[in-house]
Amino acid sequence: MMFFESLYSPGLAHRSYIFGAAGQAVVIDPQRDCRAYVEIAHRQGAALTHIFETHRNEDYVTGSVPLAALTGARIYHGAHLPFGYGHPVREGDTFRVGQFQLGVLETPGHTPESISLALADLNFSEDPVAVFTGDALFIGDVGRTDLNEDPVAGAYILYDSVRRILALGEGVLLYPAHGAGSVCGAHLAQRSFSSLGFEKAHSPVLQLDRPGFARRKVSENLYRPPYFSDMEQRNLVGAPENPDPPVPTPVPAREFARLIEEESLLPLDIREPEAFSGSHIPGALTMSLDLVPAFAGYLLPYGRPIGLIADGYDAARTAATYLFRLGYDDVPAFLQGAMTQWAAAGLELQSTPGISAMDLEARRERGEPLTVLDVRQISERRQEGAVPGSTHIYVGELPQRLARVPRDQPVVTYCNIGARAIMAASLLQRHGYERVEYFPGSFQAWTARRLPVEEWRQPAVV
Amino acid sequence: MMFFESLYSPGLAHRSYIFGAAGQAVVIDPQRDCRAYVEIAHRQGAALTHIFETHRNEDYVTGSVPLAALTGARIYHGAHLPFGYGHPVREGDTFRVGQFQLGVLETPGHTPESISLALADLNFSEDPVAVFTGDALFIGDVGRTDLNEDPVAGAYILYDSVRRILALGEGVLLYPAHGAGSVCGAHLAQRSFSSLGFEKAHSPVLQLDRPGFARRKVSENLYRPPYFSDMEQRNLVGAPENPDPPVPTPVPAREFARLIEEESLLPLDIREPEAFSGSHIPGALTMSLDLVPAFAGYLLPYGRPIGLIADGYDAARTAATYLFRLGYDDVPAFLQGAMTQWAAAGLELQSTPGISAMDLEARRERGEPLTVLDVRQISERRQEGAVPGSTHIYVGELPQRLARVPRDQPVVTYCNIGARAIMAASLLQRHGYERVEYFPGSFQAWTARRLPVEEWRQPAVV
Amino acid sequence: MMFFESLYSPGLAHRSYIFGAAGQAVVIDPQRDCRAYVEIAHRQGAALTHIFETHRNEDYVTGSVPLAALTGARIYHGAHLPFGYGHPVREGDTFRVGQFQLGVLETPGHTPESISLALADLNFSEDPVAVFTGDALFIGDVGRTDLNEDPVAGAYILYDSVRRILALGEGVLLYPAHGAGSVCGAHLAQRSFSSLGFEKAHSPVLQLDRPGFARRKVSENLYRPPYFSDMEQRNLVGAPENPDPPVPTPVPAREFARLIEEESLLPLDIREPEAFSGSHIPGALTMSLDLVPAFAGYLLPYGRPIGLIADGYDAARTAATYLFRLGYDDVPAFLQGAMTQWAAAGLELQSTPGISAMDLEARRERGEPLTVLDVRQISERRQEGAVPGSTHIYVGELPQRLARVPRDQPVVTYCNIGARAIMAASLLQRHGYERVEYFPGSFQAWTARRLPVEEWRQPAVV
Amino acid sequence: MMFFESLYSPGLAHRSYIFGAAGQAVVIDPQRDCRAYVEIAHRQGAALTHIFETHRNEDYVTGSVPLAALTGARIYHGAHLPFGYGHPVREGDTFRVGQFQLGVLETPGHTPESISLALADLNFSEDPVAVFTGDALFIGDVGRTDLNEDPVAGAYILYDSVRRILALGEGVLLYPAHGAGSVCGAHLAQRSFSSLGFEKAHSPVLQLDRPGFARRKVSENLYRPPYFSDMEQRNLVGAPENPDPPVPTPVPAREFARLIEEESLLPLDIREPEAFSGSHIPGALTMSLDLVPAFAGYLLPYGRPIGLIADGYDAARTAATYLFRLGYDDVPAFLQGAMTQWAAAGLELQSTPGISAMDLEARRERGEPLTVLDVRQISERRQEGAVPGSTHIYVGELPQRLARVPRDQPVVTYCNIGARAIMAASLLQRHGYERVEYFPGSFQAWTARRLPVEEWRQPAVV
Repeated sequence: MMFFESLYSPGLAHRSYIFGAAGQAVVIDPQRDCRAYVEIAHRQGAALTHIFETHRNEDYVTGSVPLAALTGARIYHGAHLPFGYGHPVREGDTFRVGQFQLGVLETPGHTPESISLALADLNFSEDPVAVFTGDALFIGDVGRTDLNEDPVAGAYILYDSVRRILALGEGVLLYPAHGAGSVCGAHLAQRSFSSLGFEKAHSPVLQLDRPGFARRKVSENLYRPPYFSDMEQRNLVGAPENPDPPVPTPVPAREFARLIEEESLLPLDIREPEAFSGSHIPGALTMSLDLVPAFAGYLLPYGRPIGLIADGYDAARTAATYLFRLGYDDVPAFLQGAMTQWAAAGLELQSTPGISAMDLEARRERGEPLTVLDVRQISERRQEGAVPGSTHIYVGELPQRLARVPRDQPVVTYCNIGARAIMAASLLQRHGYERVEYFPGSFQAWTARRLPVEEWRQPAVV
Repeated sequence: MMFFESLYSPGLAHRSYIFGAAGQAVVIDPQRDCRAYVEIAHRQGAALTHIFETHRNEDYVTGSVPLAALTGARIYHGAHLPFGYGHPVREGDTFRVGQFQLGVLETPGHTPESISLALADLNFSEDPVAVFTGDALFIGDVGRTDLNEDPVAGAYILYDSVRRILALGEGVLLYPAHGAGSVCGAHLAQRSFSSLGFEKAHSPVLQLDRPGFARRKVSENLYRPPYFSDMEQRNLVGAPENPDPPVPTPVPAREFARLIEEESLLPLDIREPEAFSGSHIPGALTMSLDLVPAFAGYLLPYGRPIGLIADGYDAARTAATYLFRLGYDDVPAFLQGAMTQWAAAGLELQSTPGISAMDLEARRERGEPLTVLDVRQISERRQEGAVPGSTHIYVGELPQRLARVPRDQPVVTYCNIGARAIMAASLLQRHGYERVEYFPGSFQAWTARRLPVEEWRQPAVV
Repeated sequence: MMFFESLYSPGLAHRSYIFGAAGQAVVIDPQRDCRAYVEIAHRQGAALTHIFETHRNEDYVTGSVPLAALTGARIYHGAHLPFGYGHPVREGDTFRVGQFQLGVLETPGHTPESISLALADLNFSEDPVAVFTGDALFIGDVGRTDLNEDPVAGAYILYDSVRRILALGEGVLLYPAHGAGSVCGAHLAQRSFSSLGFEKAHSPVLQLDRPGFARRKVSENLYRPPYFSDMEQRNLVGAPENPDPPVPTPVPAREFARLIEEESLLPLDIREPEAFSGSHIPGALTMSLDLVPAFAGYLLPYGRPIGLIADGYDAARTAATYLFRLGYDDVPAFLQGAMTQWAAAGLELQSTPGISAMDLEARRERGEPLTVLDVRQISERRQEGAVPGSTHIYVGELPQRLARVPRDQPVVTYCNIGARAIMAASLLQRHGYERVEYFPGSFQAWTARRLPVEEWRQPAVV
Repeated sequence: MMFFESLYSPGLAHRSYIFGAAGQAVVIDPQRDCRAYVEIAHRQGAALTHIFETHRNEDYVTGSVPLAALTGARIYHGAHLPFGYGHPVREGDTFRVGQFQLGVLETPGHTPESISLALADLNFSEDPVAVFTGDALFIGDVGRTDLNEDPVAGAYILYDSVRRILALGEGVLLYPAHGAGSVCGAHLAQRSFSSLGFEKAHSPVLQLDRPGFARRKVSENLYRPPYFSDMEQRNLVGAPENPDPPVPTPVPAREFARLIEEESLLPLDIREPEAFSGSHIPGALTMSLDLVPAFAGYLLPYGRPIGLIADGYDAARTAATYLFRLGYDDVPAFLQGAMTQWAAAGLELQSTPGISAMDLEARRERGEPLTVLDVRQISERRQEGAVPGSTHIYVGELPQRLARVPRDQPVVTYCNIGARAIMAASLLQRHGYERVEYFPGSFQAWTARRLPVEEWRQPAVV
C-alpha cells in the first residue's frame, strides 16, 4: 500500500510532503522539527530513504539535516547552488520508490537551483500524475522573483520554468511548498488543491504573456523580511542536527522582570490583541501566537534571549516551535502565571487602548491632531483604499521607519482587522511613544460602518 | 491486579474515585460527564458494577444515573433521604470487589444521609486502609453544616460523625469528595493526600472540643450560591441519562448579536481578565474559564440559553462541560472568531479599564469621589485587611445587592488578585454602571506595593 | 479561510469529505460514528449546514441522520429513490458555501439516484476545480453495476454518466467515495489522488468504448455480500440518531463461556492470524481487526450478540466501531484477559496449525488425500494461477458452499497471504471439520518458493 | 497551588514522584526517558529544581543525568557511595519547596547509601505527612538485602532503618520506589497506597522481631538478574544525557533475515504467547511486551543489536522505551509487516505447540518419556505445589542451566499462567531442542482442572 500526507506549518503556510510505498518513504521540504515524518513513515512500515529540497529556502530553517541524522536518509537538492550538505540532482534524474517514480525538472526563477519533482504512478503510466513545485508554481500564483540579483531576468526565467511545468499535462495535480498567507508569493489561493489544467486556465498570472508576466513580477513590490538573508545562509550550510525545539521554563514575575532589566531578555507577548490591549508588560512586543511565524523575522533580532508572555503552557510551547523553525533557538523563559501574576507582584502595567470606528471618525472630523497609521501591506491599501488622511508604513518596516512617525501627537494604528495594528502599537510604545491607541476591527470595521474611504492615488505614500 | 484512580473536576474541586479488582470496578461520586469511568474500567478489564453516592450533592449534578445507564451498575446511597433512584445502604452494610471490602458508616452532619465508606484490603486485614468521606471530613477541614435546617444541631451531629471516622485508625488514608477551592468547606488544604492520623493531629478544626467545634461551624458564614437548592432537587430526582455535554456551535458576530438582542442569549465571556478588560461585547458577563465551575451557579440563571465568548474551540468545549456539570444544558453557541470578528463586523465594543495600585492610592489620597468595592469573601477581608475606605460586597451576592452600589460616582472593583474583580465589574457594567474600573493584581498588588491596609473592625461591614 | 479534509474508514476504504468556508461546513457521505465532523467544523469556526449523500449506500450505514440530529444540518440526496429522510436534489441544483459552489450532476448507473457534486471556487471561476463522484467514478476504476435489477442497462447508464463527469474538464480533481480495497469496485488504484484528465488517459476501464465498457462490467463477477440488501434498506429508511458505537464490557472467561453456551453469544476472534492459529476458543470465528469491515457482512448474521476476543481494549473498541458502521449494534462483551485467562480457567482450547509451502508441496507430491482450498476471489485465481489441484471457494461464499468441502480428509486453506485462509479455516472448524490447517504466507509464499503453479483454465472451477 | 504526581513504569513496577509548589518542582527517582517530568512541571508553572535519588538503582538506568541536562536541576543522593555526579546529602539535611519541606533520613540496608525523604507541609506542621522510602520500605514488604556484600549484616541494618522510618508516625503516607511485580522485593502488595501505621500493623515482615526479620531476609532466595551488576555501575557513573529512546526502523523480511544471519541481530518477539506459539522466526526469543522490563535483563546480552517482532508500530516503540530504561540502546529494527510478511516472503517458520492440561496429564499417566519443566520462581513452587514429576529451573536461570534439560525427549514448559513458559520454550528452541511444547494456562489451568498436585518437599529440586 502507498501512503501520502501533507504537513502544514501554520503562519509560514509551508507545506511539506511525505509519501511512500513498498517499505520506503520520501520527504519533500521537511520542517525543522522533523520527528513527525519518522513517526508517519515507521507507522506505515516504511523507512525514510529520500529527502528532497525543492530550493534553498529563505523563510524557514529546513529540517533536512536533522531528519537525515535521525534516519540515515539521503538529501537531494538542485545543483546550481553550493550546498554544504546533500547531493545535487539535475534535469532528468529519476528516483524509484515502490511503484512511484520521481523525475527532476530544473525550474529556476525563484532561486537559481529550484527544482520541481514530477511524480508518476508506474502501475498506470510513466506520465506524471502530480508535481511538487516548491516555490516555482503556487495555487493561484507563482513564486517571487525579487530575491534574485537581477529580478527582471529572474522573472523571465521563472516564466519559462512555469511553462515547462504546465507542459506536464492538464490533469497533473499541483503540490507546491506554500499555501495562502505565505510571504513567498503575493496572491496565493485559499484553496489547498488544484491541477495544472485548472491553474493554466484560471490563475491570473498564468494568463499573461512573457513580457506581461515579467512586468507584473517586477512591479509586485513584495516585502523582504530582514531575516531572509540569514535563513538563506543557514539553509546553504545546513541546520544543526538537533530536531527538538527549545523548552522555555516558567519564570516568576519578579525574576522575569529582572531578566528583562539585567539580561536583555526580550519580552514577547503572544496573547490575543484584546489581552495585550487590556494590560501588558511595559515595553513588550506583541504578536499573537498565529502571527509569530510570519512576523518574528521582521521584528525580532537574532542572538537575543526571548521571554514569552502566553496564556498558557501549550501556547508557549507552540511559540517556541514556531521560533525554532525560524532559527530562534534561545527561548529560555515564559512568564509564570502570565499577566495575573505580574500584576499581583505589584509590577508596572501598560495598556494599549482600543478606539472604535465612530470615535476615530469623530476625532478625525474634529481635526484633532492625530497620526492615523496604516500598517497594512501597500498592496492592501492600493486595492481597498484607506482611512482618509492616514499615513502608511508597513508594520514589517516600522522598525526602520520610526523616524517618520511624529512623537508630538497621538497615534492610532490600524490594519485590516487589528492584529497587525496592535503589533505596530506595541513597537511604538516600546520606543517611547506615549499616546498610542489601536483600532480593533480596523479597516473591516471602518467599511462595515460605511465610513468614508480614501482611494489610492499613486504618489501619496511610498 | 487492582487499580485505583481519582478524577478531579477543576473549579468544583470535586474528587471522584474509581477502583477495581478481579474484573469488577466501583465508582464513588461520579461526575455527570461520566464516559471516562467506563473507559478506565474497561481498559483494566473490569466491568463497572457499583456506584456509590456519599451524599446528596448540592454543588454539581451527579453522574450516577447516566453512568448506571451506560453500564448497568447499581447505585447506592444513604438511607435517610428519599432518593428517586438507586438503593439505600445502612451502617454496617458491606460490599466485596475482589480482595477489597467496602463498609458503610453513616456519617451525617453535612447532610442527613451522608455516608462514609471504609476500604479494607482483605489480603492483609479486615481493618480499613482508607476511607471515602464525601463531604464529612476533608483534608484540613470538615464539611459545611449551614445547609441543614438546624445548623447548630448539624454541627453537633457532624462532630460525632467525624469522631467515628477518626476512630477507624491513624493509619487510614483519607479520600474526601473535595479538595482546596471547593465551596463545600472553608479551609481545605492545598495538599491532596492525608491520613486520619495526620488530620487528627494537625487539622485545626479537629483540635476543638464539641462545643468549640459547633461554635466554629456556626460562625463560618459561608456563602450559599443560589443554585444549591436547584442542585439538591436534581440530585434527589436523578439526572437525565445522557452523559454528553452540549456542543456549542460557532455563530458569526452579527447573528450572535441578533441572538442576544432577540432571543435572550446570555453572553458569557470566558477569556482571561486582561482580554475582557481590553474589549468585550457590551453587557457581557465575564468569568474566566477556570472560574466557571465555582461562579456560574452564583451569576447565571437557569433556563436561559448561554452564548460563549472564548479564545478558541477547546475553551468553549471545556466551558460547556463545566456548565453541564452544574445543570446548564442549553449552551447552543460560541462567538465565531471571538472579539476580533465582532470588532471587524463594526459592532459596539466595551472595555473595562484596569487601574494600578499607585493610581488607586493617588485618587484615594486626593479624596476623589470613588466607590472602592471589595468583592472578596468576607473571611478574606477579615484575615487580610482591606484597601482603606473600601466597601465590601461578595461578588456572589452582588446581583442581590446592587442597590448598595452608588451609580453617581466611579467604581473600582478589587478582590485578591483580580479575577473576581473583573467579574464584578462586568456585572456592574451589564447593569448600566458607566464608570467602572477593576484593579488587576488587586489586594496582592496593593500589599506588594506596601500601601496602607485597613484592619478588620467588626461592625463596619456586613 | 477555507478548510478541506477527507476522513477514511479503513477496511471499507470509504472516504468522506468535509469542507467549509465563511463559517459554514459541508459533509459528503458521512460515516455513522459522526462526532468527528462536528469537531472538525467547530474547530474551524464553522457550523455544519449541508450533508450530501452521493447515493444510497449498500456497504455501510451512513451517518447522515445522526449527524443532522447533532447539528441541525440539512440532508440532500438524489431524487430517484424514495428516501425516508432528507431532501431530493436534481441536475443543475447549486449550493453556495462561502466562495464555493456545489453543482449537482445526476450520474446514475451504480444506483439509480446517484449524484456527483462539482465544486467551483468562485474566487477563480465558475468552472469546477474538483468533483465528488460517490461510487460512479473511482481512481483507476468505476463503480459496480451488478447491483442493478438490470446490470446490462446499468452498465450502459454508468458509461454515459462517467462521460458526463469526464466532460467537466481534464484539470478537475477527483474525489470518490472509496479507495483501494473497497467491495464497491474491482480495480481501484492504491493511489489516493487523481484528476479527470489522468483517469481519462490512464484508467483502463475508461479506455473502452461503450459496448466494451458494458461487456467488461457485466463480466466482472464481483461478490455480493449478503448484508448489502440489509444496508440498502437501512440507508433508505435512515439510521437511528445515536452516533456512538456500542461499548463492549470485559467479561471473565467462565462467564464468556456461559454466554456462548446459553445465550448464543457469537465468539469473534479479531487477533492476528498467528495468534488464532496458536490457540483459540473452540468454534470461534476469526477475522483479524483490519478485515472486520470487509468481511463481517459476509460471515456474521444480524440479530445475534457478538463477543470479541481481542488483544486489548483498544482493539475491542475499534472492532465495535467497525461493526457499528455495518449495522451490528449488539456487541456487549469482550473476553477479559483474552486467551491467557481463558486458558488459565482450564477451558478448552483449539488450534489451527499452519503448514509451510514445502510441507504442502511434499504432501501434494506424495498424493496424500488432502483438500487444498483456495479461498481467494476468483479473479485472483484467474490472474495469478493456483496451487495445482486446489479447489476454489471464495471465503465470502464458504458458508453457503460448505457441502462442497469433503469432511473425510484433511483440509488446508490458502489465500494470497494467509489472512483470509485462517478465516476460512475457522469457519470449517466451527462447522465440525476436524483436520483443518491453514497456509501462512499462502500463495505469496508458494511463488516465493518457486513451486509449480496451475494456470487458469476456464471450466475447471466456478 | 501544589501538585503531586506519581509516574509508573510497568514491568519494572517502578514509581517515581514529581511534586511542586510556588513555582518549583522536585523529582524523586526519575526514569531515563524523562521529558514527561519537564512537561508536568512546566504545565504547572514550575521549574524543575531538585532531583533526588533514594539509592543507587540496580534494576533500571536512572534519568537523573538526562533530566538535569534538560532542566538545570541539581541532583542529590546518599553520601555513602562514590557517585560520579550530583551532590551527597546526609541525615537531617532539609530542602524547601514552597510550603513543603523534605528532610533526609539515612536508611541503609538495601544499599549502603539509601536515603528516605520525609515530606512536611509547613502550612500545617513540621511533622511529616508522607515519606519517600525508595527500596527500603515497600507496601507489604521491605527491600531486598541479598545484594549486599554481607547479606546478614544488610538485613540487620535494614531492620533498624525500617524502625526509624516507622517512627515518623502512624499517619505518615508511604511512597516507595516500587509496586507489586518488582524484582526489588518479594511480596509487595498489589495495593498502591498505604501508611506507616497500616504497614506497621499489617505488613507480615514488619511483625517479626530483629532476628526473625534477618532470618526471613536471608532465606528469601530472590533471583538476581545478571544485568544488575551492569546497572549498578551505570548508575554510579551516570547515564548519558540523551533522554530519547532509540527509534527502531521497519525492515523488510528478507533484509531482517539477512541482519540476523550476517550482522548478529537478535530477534526478539514481543507478541502475545499464542501468536508466538502459532508461528515465529526460527531461533527467536520471545517475551510478550509487558514482560520485557522484567525479563530482558535475564535473557538479553548487552552489546548486541536487537530486532523486534511486534504486532505494530506502537508495540515496537514501547518495547524500545522499555529496553532503553534497561540500558539496551541498540534497537535498530523491527520486522515490517510482522510474521505475515515473513511468511509471505517464503522464509522458514517455526511453531511452539501448546498442550492442554488433560493431554499433559494423559501423557504423564501413560508414562511417556517427557521433561515437564517448571520455570516459575522457586517460591511459587513451594507455596502452590507442582505438576507431579516436573523439574524446576527458573526461567531467568535457564540460560545458565540448559545442560540440565535432556535433549533426547520432548519438553513441556509451564509456569503460573503460560507467559514465562513460552519464553522458556523459545530459549530451548533457540538452543536446538526439537520437541518443545508449552502449556497455556499452565499451573492455573492445572488446578482449575483439579488435577493432582505434588506438594513441596525440601530436597527434591534446587
